Amino acid sequence: MAGETVWRHWRRKVHDILEVGGDAHPAAHAVTAFIVALIVLNAVAFAAETVDSVAAEYGPWFDALNLFSVAVFTVEYLLRLWSCVEIPMLSRMPPWRARLRFATRPMMIIDLLAFAPWYVHWIYPIDLRILRVFRLFRLLKLVRYSPALQTLGRVLADEYRALFGALLIMLVLLLFASTGMYFLEREAQPVAFGSVPAAAWWALATLTTVGYGDVVPVTPLGKMLGGVVMLLGVGMFALPIAIIATGFSQESNRHQFVVTWSMVARVPLFASMDETEIAEITKLLYTRSYLPGVPMVRAGDVGDGMFLIASGEAVVEVAAAGTRRLKEGDFFGEMALLEHRRHKHDVIAKSRCRVYVLDSQALARLTRRHPEIMTHIREVAKKRTEIDASPPARKSARKAPAGEKA
Amino acid sequence: MAGETVWRHWRRKVHDILEVGGDAHPAAHAVTAFIVALIVLNAVAFAAETVDSVAAEYGPWFDALNLFSVAVFTVEYLLRLWSCVEIPMLSRMPPWRARLRFATRPMMIIDLLAFAPWYVHWIYPIDLRILRVFRLFRLLKLVRYSPALQTLGRVLADEYRALFGALLIMLVLLLFASTGMYFLEREAQPVAFGSVPAAAWWALATLTTVGYGDVVPVTPLGKMLGGVVMLLGVGMFALPIAIIATGFSQESNRHQFVVTWSMVARVPLFASMDETEIAEITKLLYTRSYLPGVPMVRAGDVGDGMFLIASGEAVVEVAAAGTRRLKEGDFFGEMALLEHRRHKHDVIAKSRCRVYVLDSQALARLTRRHPEIMTHIREVAKKRTEIDASPPARKSARKAPAGEKA
Amino acid sequence: MAGETVWRHWRRKVHDILEVGGDAHPAAHAVTAFIVALIVLNAVAFAAETVDSVAAEYGPWFDALNLFSVAVFTVEYLLRLWSCVEIPMLSRMPPWRARLRFATRPMMIIDLLAFAPWYVHWIYPIDLRILRVFRLFRLLKLVRYSPALQTLGRVLADEYRALFGALLIMLVLLLFASTGMYFLEREAQPVAFGSVPAAAWWALATLTTVGYGDVVPVTPLGKMLGGVVMLLGVGMFALPIAIIATGFSQESNRHQFVVTWSMVARVPLFASMDETEIAEITKLLYTRSYLPGVPMVRAGDVGDGMFLIASGEAVVEVAAAGTRRLKEGDFFGEMALLEHRRHKHDVIAKSRCRVYVLDSQALARLTRRHPEIMTHIREVAKKRTEIDASPPARKSARKAPAGEKA
Amino acid sequence: MAGETVWRHWRRKVHDILEVGGDAHPAAHAVTAFIVALIVLNAVAFAAETVDSVAAEYGPWFDALNLFSVAVFTVEYLLRLWSCVEIPMLSRMPPWRARLRFATRPMMIIDLLAFAPWYVHWIYPIDLRILRVFRLFRLLKLVRYSPALQTLGRVLADEYRALFGALLIMLVLLLFASTGMYFLEREAQPVAFGSVPAAAWWALATLTTVGYGDVVPVTPLGKMLGGVVMLLGVGMFALPIAIIATGFSQESNRHQFVVTWSMVARVPLFASMDETEIAEITKLLYTRSYLPGVPMVRAGDVGDGMFLIASGEAVVEVAAAGTRRLKEGDFFGEMALLEHRRHKHDVIAKSRCRVYVLDSQALARLTRRHPEIMTHIREVAKKRTEIDASPPARKSARKAPAGEKA
Repeated sequence: MAGETVWRHWRRKVHDILEVGGDAHPAAHAVTAFIVALIVLNAVAFAAETVDSVAAEYGPWFDALNLFSVAVFTVEYLLRLWSCVEIPMLSRMPPWRARLRFATRPMMIIDLLAFAPWYVHWIYPIDLRILRVFRLFRLLKLVRYSPALQTLGRVLADEYRALFGALLIMLVLLLFASTGMYFLEREAQPVAFGSVPAAAWWALATLTTVGYGDVVPVTPLGKMLGGVVMLLGVGMFALPIAIIATGFSQESNRHQFVVTWSMVARVPLFASMDETEIAEITKLLYTRSYLPGVPMVRAGDVGDGMFLIASGEAVVEVAAAGTRRLKEGDFFGEMALLEHRRHKHDVIAKSRCRVYVLDSQALARLTRRHPEIMTHIREVAKKRTEIDASPPARKSARKAPAGEKA
Repeated sequence: MAGETVWRHWRRKVHDILEVGGDAHPAAHAVTAFIVALIVLNAVAFAAETVDSVAAEYGPWFDALNLFSVAVFTVEYLLRLWSCVEIPMLSRMPPWRARLRFATRPMMIIDLLAFAPWYVHWIYPIDLRILRVFRLFRLLKLVRYSPALQTLGRVLADEYRALFGALLIMLVLLLFASTGMYFLEREAQPVAFGSVPAAAWWALATLTTVGYGDVVPVTPLGKMLGGVVMLLGVGMFALPIAIIATGFSQESNRHQFVVTWSMVARVPLFASMDETEIAEITKLLYTRSYLPGVPMVRAGDVGDGMFLIASGEAVVEVAAAGTRRLKEGDFFGEMALLEHRRHKHDVIAKSRCRVYVLDSQALARLTRRHPEIMTHIREVAKKRTEIDASPPARKSARKAPAGEKA
Repeated sequence: MAGETVWRHWRRKVHDILEVGGDAHPAAHAVTAFIVALIVLNAVAFAAETVDSVAAEYGPWFDALNLFSVAVFTVEYLLRLWSCVEIPMLSRMPPWRARLRFATRPMMIIDLLAFAPWYVHWIYPIDLRILRVFRLFRLLKLVRYSPALQTLGRVLADEYRALFGALLIMLVLLLFASTGMYFLEREAQPVAFGSVPAAAWWALATLTTVGYGDVVPVTPLGKMLGGVVMLLGVGMFALPIAIIATGFSQESNRHQFVVTWSMVARVPLFASMDETEIAEITKLLYTRSYLPGVPMVRAGDVGDGMFLIASGEAVVEVAAAGTRRLKEGDFFGEMALLEHRRHKHDVIAKSRCRVYVLDSQALARLTRRHPEIMTHIREVAKKRTEIDASPPARKSARKAPAGEKA
Repeated sequence: MAGETVWRHWRRKVHDILEVGGDAHPAAHAVTAFIVALIVLNAVAFAAETVDSVAAEYGPWFDALNLFSVAVFTVEYLLRLWSCVEIPMLSRMPPWRARLRFATRPMMIIDLLAFAPWYVHWIYPIDLRILRVFRLFRLLKLVRYSPALQTLGRVLADEYRALFGALLIMLVLLLFASTGMYFLEREAQPVAFGSVPAAAWWALATLTTVGYGDVVPVTPLGKMLGGVVMLLGVGMFALPIAIIATGFSQESNRHQFVVTWSMVARVPLFASMDETEIAEITKLLYTRSYLPGVPMVRAGDVGDGMFLIASGEAVVEVAAAGTRRLKEGDFFGEMALLEHRRHKHDVIAKSRCRVYVLDSQALARLTRRHPEIMTHIREVAKKRTEIDASPPARKSARKAPAGEKA
């Protein structure tokens, strides 16, 4: 029993370091830095190894680095798999099923591809060149560590229709430009413009404004068409920029920090949800950050969301009843939202605070699917109202409930 | 009589598959995919055929594909023409006139140009090269299938004045740059800079930042002017991007999905309108999409538009009278808009819902031209108010009217 | 006396055609089209004339075109100068002073430079090459005819500080890049990178992503620095685009059409202002356009501006008193603005309407400087209120006052 | 004593000219222009000196300019250091400590680096080439004089995470593109694509759309990959532009003029704050500018900030009590903000006014840390209310207090 407790204690620690990260454990930053450094080193080594002279001189070093990386990534993968049962939602299943499920998450598959081919290669001979290319997957491990990359990825995903439309316009223009140039220049330059696919090389280099200059039109009519294609290229350039800029400006208004699946999986309020539901709620939440002393909610403001404290501490200033503390996992602001009224109290960040915000539409959707969450929220809110109504003397004797009304 | 009923039944089906598309008929997606694939295949074949070696080897295959495409596009065109009388608005005219009118719609003309030249060529000999170029029109058929392309097209159309202004600035700069370089470099490089049009080739490649490098200034003064032109090029680049980005960000706020003429032509409320009027209202409407369980309108929100359910089902939550269902073709939210007040009830999407939204300005314009529509809206609204006022017990016995007040 | 009346009648017509333009006179569009065509033809001829073979063959035609253009532009200039006294504000001075003042307006100076050098050349011999370059000024006459060009010009003018800052960053980076490359490559390529100015040619072509490729780094360290400079170039590119896009999106929200000095000079309400004041108010006004049947102001909306009808007709729907017509020069909406209240009546565009909008800040500034304008506005508003209060029967007998309250 | 007063008088003047700048002293503009000109001249000389022929002919002149610049910059630095004790916040420490602290501000370090190496070189021999490169630091002195540069710098600093993410995507794409091209082209072009780093030169030139054209793929598969990389390049280009455009548009809405540390350090209200706190409040403040006669705050508007007059004069229009003047250092609008109500009076700019605005969040944060500031604000506000309540006749006899309530 004691042995298992120690075991669980360590499993919790490993989970905090690898999955939760940030300020969850003192060693988390160091471990993250080490893994990021190893990934970067692998990328540099990958490129350097293709230089013959470098490969000849430092070959053994590269092999050693590779072996070391495979070892580290293997251990990291196994530790992640072992400690994943610490996630509240997965802790309700048999461990082997929890781990199997966890292993199918996209980031875990990338993690696996980063080192697995090296093992496969001992069992079943793979072409060494292909084996080497698999090492590039190690770079994708970086996604886990860059919130900005996740934001950008989300913008690209949100705007994929429009970007695909822009690509379509580009390809239609490409075909028209190539066909036009093929008719105008094929006699003057039979090699460069002898067919539409050949002319497409020039057309693409021009439309994207790359303009290598290895092939240029020489006839007056060809130059005229070339000029039109250049101008169209500038216009073409504008489309993806406009699309991404629009998407990015909308994204950045809402998502000051990206909420990840592992962050949400830890919130006690959502303990009853399963894997997919957490993935879904992750998309609904966004986060805000407050410096100490900054009011997060002000009495008299319109309630625009329910706030969940992800990290840090806050203080509710109840006019008649002194102050109350809110800590990680507590929530506030839900009553103003539910009752379509203004906030009654100031809530002020005590330490540096990060909160998750559920806006009205997200909360409506959540409670419709999980009425038990709303029941819990209403219970906590009710308790708080009773406390506020009771004289301050008595109130200070009790412990503050899980959430605070603001 | 029975024969004609079968006939009409099929005509309706064909119309649903080809014109309405989407979820209107199970086969619609497959037919769309097939036509898009055929268009793409035609584009690839067009390019491949210009490669002599490919043309020599696979010539008969290309001819077969062309014949097959002509056949498919002909059948598609004729079916569209035949079934177009299913559109409510066209069904009020004699069939031949309805079809003639429909044939003059821009997309139908593109459809015709995609295969007609092949037939003409049997009657009147056309140069085979020109005949081949006409095949590129088949690509334009894609516009029908890409909402993003339509959005982008609309942005370009909306901002054409500003884009034309940017082009004008570009051409003025081009003329100044070419003239300057002609004076500075014509002695050093009499071929490349011997005249203003010749110098314009360099100037355009520089202003658009293509920079082939086939012609570059060599004199110190020429290089200095070249540097200025490069910097101006960066500025020039900014104009179309700024214009399109601004237009796109405004467009994307309103048009989450593009409403097409055929979609609006199907709404029962607009049955009394003619072709042009529907085209006009198409520009005024925009659509929103809701996942199941998401509130579309919330009691207490300010009424900002009238909502027409294009597909899916919704539920009105009348506090005192239980809920009522809204289905395709029903509308809600019009009373809050007309009476400048807040919504009285929640309306929640039951299944995945797409709605058309008419904002206050669009509704005002519509009712001014079609008072009979407003009369109809007011009648439905009045009925609903009576029902709401009556006791819930009686109300549940009646059938819900065509629209619901929210 | 009769002769002078005919004279004035014609002067008014010439003024309407040349200065006011648009729909002010049936011939205005034709005259504008003719002048624009002549300007474009001049630009084409200017470029074509530098091609020796074309110049040799069509020389006399170019000379004829030039002579014809000089004649037309001279007549246009003189007519503008002659008719300018029709502008209300200039009509209060002695004609010679009015014309002298008008001649110093920027567009009039450009007009003068478009043909004057040709006359000077008969009196004082000018180098023919310089004379030819002066012809390029004719292109600038286009500014008068392109509202988009004026919008873009205004954006560039508004953001000149930020653009200058971006240019400064570009030049600082250019100096650093050139210096770096000069140290790294000057031994390998003493001609291309032998001095910082020489290296700047490469650095500028790279930072602007033009990339001619006539000079490229060849040493490994040089290529590394080259890569960094390319990446910086992409970042540099972003600055002017971001600046112009931001400026443009703000501009396009306010200025749907550009208001010009001549448009404002015609508004009777501003008759007491002088030249500079009209130039100032021109910057404060913006315009909106409405299709027939569209409400311009709705009862119940918050008053956000005073509206002046620039062209078209509108109708005020006074609940108790039927409707009243508003025509060119009338104003409405000022009371809601002055009294910080909501509009009382709907105002609906009868024909296609263009209005000038003075927002609250602009109106405050205007009335502070010209109390007599406010007095006039208040008088008109008072009259209208009296009329509204009187029974409808009597009201319809009177003529509608100059402005209508909404 | 008298000597010291003269001394202090001059120190104040020097401080006004060098640190405060703008309209603080008549000579400030001239001194600024002189220093900016000297910096630009240094940059030009730096580049010109690397041209051998120029260096040979004008060598002594360059040496003289350098000596003169070192002298000017030394004097400027020493004067700044000497006069810095005029800053209210630094005046409370012993002079030597104030000056030591001031010397560690970033701009002072840049100032030092602009001339110090020249002195060091007399004591300890430095390589002359390195000595020359240090002269480029003089360019960075320009930052002090360009508000636009500071705005751009702030945008880059704010968005550094997203920009770093974009760089990461660029580098990942670069590695994939280089690796792909290395496999496809290394046999056809063993020099240009013989290793991944070698191929990266081509990949970077293509992804950034620079496109030198010194190396281009020649195999069909290589050209295909090249085409994909070009298209990705256009997409890559969009990311930094979107990021910077979004950041810039948000920045430009708030910061019409950049507030600098020295500007805030002069506000009497903040006299009790130390160096870091002023640096912090500098980030919270933004400025607005008003022309004479323009209302800065209008009775009835919602209070959105507290206003501090940085320069110029304003007038409060108290309905019952005539007007009151506000001058540099006075504040207004704080009561509407603190009491969540609308402004009671109009405040109108009398001369050209620049104000600092503290919005509600910034004010809350400030008063939480510095309760004494809030106490002062409340005292001034209370005094004003008493005055307003007293009959106008008595009030006009008193002097207006330091701040005015609006």
